[in-house]
Amino acid sequence: MTQGQEMYQWACELFPITRSITGPGVRETLHYFKNILPDLKIHEVPTGYNAFDWEVPKEWEIKEAYIENENGQRLIDFDNNNLHVVGYSVPIDKWIPKEELLNYIYTLPEQPDAIPYVTSYYKERWGFCMTHNQKETLKEGKYHVVIKSSLKKGVLNYADLVIPGKTDKEILFSTYICHPSMANNELSGPVLATALANYLTKQKDLRYTYRFVFVPETIGSIVYLSKHINQLKEKVIAGFVLTCVGDERVWSFMPSRKDGTMTDKVSRYVLEDNAIDYKDYSFLQRGSDERQYCSPKVDLPVASIMRSKYGTYLEYHTSDDNLELITPTGLEESFNIYQKVIQVIENNFKPIVSFPCEPQLGKRGLYPDLSIKGGATYVKNMMDILAYSDGTLDLINLFRKTGVDFEEGFKIVNTLMKQGVISKIDI
Amino acid sequence: MTQGQEMYQWACELFPITRSITGPGVRETLHYFKNILPDLKIHEVPTGYNAFDWEVPKEWEIKEAYIENENGQRLIDFDNNNLHVVGYSVPIDKWIPKEELLNYIYTLPEQPDAIPYVTSYYKERWGFCMTHNQKETLKEGKYHVVIKSSLKKGVLNYADLVIPGKTDKEILFSTYICHPSMANNELSGPVLATALANYLTKQKDLRYTYRFVFVPETIGSIVYLSKHINQLKEKVIAGFVLTCVGDERVWSFMPSRKDGTMTDKVSRYVLEDNAIDYKDYSFLQRGSDERQYCSPKVDLPVASIMRSKYGTYLEYHTSDDNLELITPTGLEESFNIYQKVIQVIENNFKPIVSFPCEPQLGKRGLYPDLSIKGGATYVKNMMDILAYSDGTLDLINLFRKTGVDFEEGFKIVNTLMKQGVISKIDI
Amino acid sequence: MTQGQEMYQWACELFPITRSITGPGVRETLHYFKNILPDLKIHEVPTGYNAFDWEVPKEWEIKEAYIENENGQRLIDFDNNNLHVVGYSVPIDKWIPKEELLNYIYTLPEQPDAIPYVTSYYKERWGFCMTHNQKETLKEGKYHVVIKSSLKKGVLNYADLVIPGKTDKEILFSTYICHPSMANNELSGPVLATALANYLTKQKDLRYTYRFVFVPETIGSIVYLSKHINQLKEKVIAGFVLTCVGDERVWSFMPSRKDGTMTDKVSRYVLEDNAIDYKDYSFLQRGSDERQYCSPKVDLPVASIMRSKYGTYLEYHTSDDNLELITPTGLEESFNIYQKVIQVIENNFKPIVSFPCEPQLGKRGLYPDLSIKGGATYVKNMMDILAYSDGTLDLINLFRKTGVDFEEGFKIVNTLMKQGVISKIDI
Repeated sequence: MTQGQEMYQWACELFPITRSITGPGVRETLHYFKNILPDLKIHEVPTGYNAFDWEVPKEWEIKEAYIENENGQRLIDFDNNNLHVVGYSVPIDKWIPKEELLNYIYTLPEQPDAIPYVTSYYKERWGFCMTHNQKETLKEGKYHVVIKSSLKKGVLNYADLVIPGKTDKEILFSTYICHPSMANNELSGPVLATALANYLTKQKDLRYTYRFVFVPETIGSIVYLSKHINQLKEKVIAGFVLTCVGDERVWSFMPSRKDGTMTDKVSRYVLEDNAIDYKDYSFLQRGSDERQYCSPKVDLPVASIMRSKYGTYLEYHTSDDNLELITPTGLEESFNIYQKVIQVIENNFKPIVSFPCEPQLGKRGLYPDLSIKGGATYVKNMMDILAYSDGTLDLINLFRKTGVDFEEGFKIVNTLMKQGVISKIDI
Repeated sequence: MTQGQEMYQWACELFPITRSITGPGVRETLHYFKNILPDLKIHEVPTGYNAFDWEVPKEWEIKEAYIENENGQRLIDFDNNNLHVVGYSVPIDKWIPKEELLNYIYTLPEQPDAIPYVTSYYKERWGFCMTHNQKETLKEGKYHVVIKSSLKKGVLNYADLVIPGKTDKEILFSTYICHPSMANNELSGPVLATALANYLTKQKDLRYTYRFVFVPETIGSIVYLSKHINQLKEKVIAGFVLTCVGDERVWSFMPSRKDGTMTDKVSRYVLEDNAIDYKDYSFLQRGSDERQYCSPKVDLPVASIMRSKYGTYLEYHTSDDNLELITPTGLEESFNIYQKVIQVIENNFKPIVSFPCEPQLGKRGLYPDLSIKGGATYVKNMMDILAYSDGTLDLINLFRKTGVDFEEGFKIVNTLMKQGVISKIDI
Repeated sequence: MTQGQEMYQWACELFPITRSITGPGVRETLHYFKNILPDLKIHEVPTGYNAFDWEVPKEWEIKEAYIENENGQRLIDFDNNNLHVVGYSVPIDKWIPKEELLNYIYTLPEQPDAIPYVTSYYKERWGFCMTHNQKETLKEGKYHVVIKSSLKKGVLNYADLVIPGKTDKEILFSTYICHPSMANNELSGPVLATALANYLTKQKDLRYTYRFVFVPETIGSIVYLSKHINQLKEKVIAGFVLTCVGDERVWSFMPSRKDGTMTDKVSRYVLEDNAIDYKDYSFLQRGSDERQYCSPKVDLPVASIMRSKYGTYLEYHTSDDNLELITPTGLEESFNIYQKVIQVIENNFKPIVSFPCEPQLGKRGLYPDLSIKGGATYVKNMMDILAYSDGTLDLINLFRKTGVDFEEGFKIVNTLMKQGVISKIDI
């Protein structure tokens, strides 16, 4: 099974679970990942916990929900699609006439066949979601609206995993596990996070420490930051929110708030070095947990490489964001890109020549011993890399400057290091 | 009466006065403004006063001037238009033949119906100005040239007015009162200065101190600088030469010498925020008292927002620059723009969020309590302003970054300050 | 005789000499220049001398070389063209069949009438060069290959000349004397170096010290650097590799590695101020001794103004790079450009006004005493130069800013200095 197929299978198994920002669905999801990543640590904070300007809400649980007509037919049933209920709906069980029912029904008139994803975490209400076409067929009469849910003091769950490297400087990956049955946004992020963590766990001699964070969006990342902000600000040198990484459409990049961080530089470099055409968004188009990680008094270097960015594709936040939208290939390509990002971060440094003037490459068998018009590209690349190995440029800037691609450039740099002609300055 | 009508009326009453760099016309003009601005202080320095590289010249007075032909007809008469005499002409009274007369007559062959504005402050000579068409009709014969003027030791007058604010940091407005009967260049500047000073005098709780300076161009600003240079260099944080602000043609901007000062930034921002198309000149096209205020060892942050810039419009420095060229509307629009400039300067600061992560706007009634696809621009603007309120951007940069206009942005910022979500860092 | 004709004559006399990186041809060439520049100092280092990563090779001498066929006819003869033998060929004298001979013959199939220039300094081999057309006519049979050469312990020669100025800050000119009978690349550089040194020797009151260096390419500049690196790094503020300066085709500029040095700035300014269209190369297209002078741990501000750049013209490194390719006019134009470069370097400084506000130029006869619409460009240029004489801009930046050309601008600056209106800040 390919890496992409494995990730896709995880997504299939996780898809039906009713996740929200709290509740049993979150715990079930986190335990699923813990089966794959035994060192994953699952945490909880209680309802009422204060995180900066926020307070953890009550825990929500839902058992059953439907709308029944006078003939006893269930028009919609939570068991068929957990998007049918507004997230965090309070319990209800009564008969109401059609005109009253309409106040509690949410649809998307412009996408009449899709059920919208609606939540109301911080105001107690109840409601149902259905396709606009179904709403149009509702007849006069009474309807039995039933939501068997509870909102009680409980906990908010999240999980993290730290994979230690030689230095305690960290690369952060954060993803969110609060979306019910939707695939690109958002099961693709958690399954990619799991695959990357699994991959890194197996690597030896990692240079950097890697931190994976699984949180409910917004409230979860705020809670996590409230507990770890000083450590993260001290240690994190690059970070990513993993989201919308499962389809096969155009690549997208969301830079960090200040842009120009190592995260931004490596991300764009990897995309360009792999000749990937991508849409380079502004932070003004942000929309996930970079809102918290990049907020002014946090300001971590967090960005996102995505496929179809949240908020930009038709299926977003509807029942159409399903397992047909994401593919094993799409997931695998995202895995590969992030793997390259990790390789560049792990292997980047600033080379510096060992002595003044060009080295005599001829005596090392690295230079043609006969001088005649014309010359090999490999030699030209090697000489260009030497010419700019002045200790001020990291490999990314060096390869951008000389036009050499990462793979060839890295081979040349290694050859030159073995020959003692250049040495490393750590970044 | 609108502000524009009032300014236009002042211009009409001042138009006939024979102003020059010294003399009774200057004093009459300054006293006219003192009637409107009782706190205006009128100053004088004597002939021979040394200001840096310059010396105040003799005071010039003129009573009468004309050219008479052999039939006793007056071909031109100073009483009809004070541009007919070269400024600072020495007295003359003699009969001369046509061929000699022509040496003393100045015209504009390319604008044959306009009388040019000509001066000779620093070399003693006499001369007349007339339309080129009139010159072409001069017949052979003798002409009686009469200028009843005097050049004597006297004084050079100027005036200033300081309107105190909470801080002694100053905003400087300078204008010049040495042009005889011309309207856009230059009665528009002095009447706008007077209107703005009048407006500011009535404001309470001004943040900055405002200094208005009325001087003859060049020699006057040099004299003023020679007396106040240290104070101005210490206090002035923004400044404007008010000139050519009376017509309704294209807007113009003359930046300060070094550009990039607060004056330049606020000026361009106000023009752009009000969707005003304008011509952005280089300091190489300068031509008024910014020549002195921005000179290397003075270097005040002085710029000009103008309508038709001096030197660029056909009527400039001729009898066609008259009361038909300027309008109440043109004057009022200039008043409004400078008023906005003042408002932006007065209200600008750097906002900073009060805590890490986004604030919970929902509990403050500032965020929708239901989450569904799509969202209001107002909320997006508020979130963007918060995202960039990191204490490094002033409101101008913040609003440029987020694309929010000043009026809406300032309302949002005030709302967020009242909620304690952001606070002020003074500039 | 013009300067260009004199340089061309030197080139003609030097052309036949068999130069290489070592040997009697180098010494003969250096002694030729010493006849013109009596203060030129000729130096030597022995075979085996270590310079950074390099070792000086054996000295090469060649007396005779030819290929003879069975009929006793010499197909090629070193006496006709010294390019016929691969540089640094070891001795050989034997009869070999055609098929073996072909292994030792170098041609340029794409330039079938040209003899290529081939060397093998650091690997002992022997070989012949001929036109491709001649090679095609070789018949089956035996050939007598004869090279009467020697590779022995000896010396590597180079020369330098230091012309002292008021300051010990240096302007470096380096050129190379290791090419046998080729003209643009490379006799043009050495003859231009000689002409410039000759010119500077005759100047009085030079501001800067000038250093001329004549070395074999690569190994010579590395040896020179190994002996003088600290001094050069401390003293050299601008430098040039003189090469490819003899033809009349497009101008070329090779910037220093870091670009933006004084050398780069002055070079481009002189080219542009003289309205010379030129190709601005990247350091990635480098190819001469700037490879050493600009290498990371040397990093001197060394660039090249050239005509047809090495490696870009068809005749390069072939027998077609001969005395027809270079011309007295081409050499003279290069001399003139470098002379202007020297003049700009010698005369550059930062002007600063002597007092606040504009000076009163009228009382100095430098400003029109009558003010009327329109004005002279000369006055505008003078006022613009004054406006930006704030002590931060050198003449290059000042003239770029104001759009005044060097000749006129320099006259204005001198006039203003004589009037005491501006003064000098040394760079």
